[in-house]
Amino acid sequence: MQLTFLGTGDVRQVPVYGCHCRACTAARDDARLRRRPCSALLEAGGQRILLDGGLTDLAERFAPGDLNAILLTHYHIDHVQGLFHLRWGVNDAIPVYGPDDRDGCADLLKHPGILDFRPPLEPFEPFMLGEAQVTPLPLQHSKPTFGYLFEQDGKRIAYLTDTVGLPENTARLLEGLDELEMVIDCSQPPRPEPPRNHNDLNLVLAIHQRLQPKTTWLTHIGHEMDQWLQDHELPDAVLIARDGQWLRSE
Amino acid sequence: MQLTFLGTGDVRQVPVYGCHCRACTAARDDARLRRRPCSALLEAGGQRILLDGGLTDLAERFAPGDLNAILLTHYHIDHVQGLFHLRWGVNDAIPVYGPDDRDGCADLLKHPGILDFRPPLEPFEPFMLGEAQVTPLPLQHSKPTFGYLFEQDGKRIAYLTDTVGLPENTARLLEGLDELEMVIDCSQPPRPEPPRNHNDLNLVLAIHQRLQPKTTWLTHIGHEMDQWLQDHELPDAVLIARDGQWLRSE
Ligand SMILES: [Mn+2]
Ligand SMILES: [Mn+2]
Ligand SMILES: [Mn+2]
Ligand SMILES: [Mn+2]
Ligand SMILES: [Zn+2]
Ligand SMILES: [Zn+2]
Repeated sequence: MQLTFLGTGDVRQVPVYGCHCRACTAARDDARLRRRPCSALLEAGGQRILLDGGLTDLAERFAPGDLNAILLTHYHIDHVQGLFHLRWGVNDAIPVYGPDDRDGCADLLKHPGILDFRPPLEPFEPFMLGEAQVTPLPLQHSKPTFGYLFEQDGKRIAYLTDTVGLPENTARLLEGLDELEMVIDCSQPPRPEPPRNHNDLNLVLAIHQRLQPKTTWLTHIGHEMDQWLQDHELPDAVLIARDGQWLRSE
Repeated sequence: MQLTFLGTGDVRQVPVYGCHCRACTAARDDARLRRRPCSALLEAGGQRILLDGGLTDLAERFAPGDLNAILLTHYHIDHVQGLFHLRWGVNDAIPVYGPDDRDGCADLLKHPGILDFRPPLEPFEPFMLGEAQVTPLPLQHSKPTFGYLFEQDGKRIAYLTDTVGLPENTARLLEGLDELEMVIDCSQPPRPEPPRNHNDLNLVLAIHQRLQPKTTWLTHIGHEMDQWLQDHELPDAVLIARDGQWLRSE
């Protein structure tokens, strides 16, 4: 399995519009440091699965037929905004899976176009996409939100965003799994109190400590987290993701 | 006054995702033929006013302070989607004017960030933006929608999208005005029946005939209209707009 980080930014992205902090200035000077809306491409067993649709240039990135499915974590605009153009394509339908949230976002569910929204997924009910098993994992956020555990041939990738902490039953399912690569929301640097609806690094490190994955990859990064990273090191086996980077579990 | 067409496409844009019609193929081969979400920049009396926020690269197009105001025609996603990134900027607030539609789009009104949503405009109640007078004109669409009449020093530009036909009182106000440049929704080529919520060319030509503007500029163009234009001519004083083109009324 391979996961490519297409976007690793929080809702504000990096650079933040008009911000001249050290992180935003660096990102404006060097496109490799930009962070677009949080999303990823999972390639597993011949399937190409888009995780969230917040990039607004999806039509240029993916030719018709390139994507076997879209998996949505939740219906916040930064995770679905790119689908509003894609839906009016003339191609074969693209199956879209996600949590039970009938409100969706704006008129996306009412006018789905070529997006074939499947019945809402059930928490902890695994299903197959090609040869990969996918398990929806409830997260803690301001809208119904799923993380996903992907498993194939004993290898595992968990994609966990947006969330603040983890619900106990989700943590328990992931605890002690072999060969686990964990990707997780780390919107903010260490805070006395974690931000509403998102992890800070303190929370992420506590989760990393408990679940003991092979690697913890930080995504959904805000510009303050990027500033913090200019002055601090991360512990072993905790890595910051960048747009365009990939990780393999094989 | 100068109006620059930033986007002249309908909700599907040109090219349509995955479409290989003559118009979409041409637009994929020649970027100048692309049509992005319908929007424009009005420059009048030292003010720069963005008409609709459907372009998703607004942060790259406009530095903080560049825009004096944003005028929204309505809250369909293709007219506001670019505001979801802009709102989380760190700059001075940008005044935003629009019709009375408390639903707005997704959580835009609930979490406005730096967007300073002003009280809804009143139909036919003129107000000043800098030295230009702006009159909101009710249109006929599936959401509350205003066109706008801009007037300065006896020159006039009317921006009328999205609409199917014109309400009688809006048509009556525009009828016979001197020095009028009219920009209008022409999503579709001539149809036996106009499409729901949008003009076809037959409706536009009837409006052009009645109002007798100096020029009628067609915008909010769909790929079928672009195909039609490859084989047909438009009447005198009726012009097709293109992304990046501008018109002056002075
Ligand atoms: Mn998010
Ligand atoms: Mn979210
Ligand atoms: Mn429209
Ligand atoms: Mn509309
Ligand atoms: Zn910043
Ligand atoms: Zn086409």
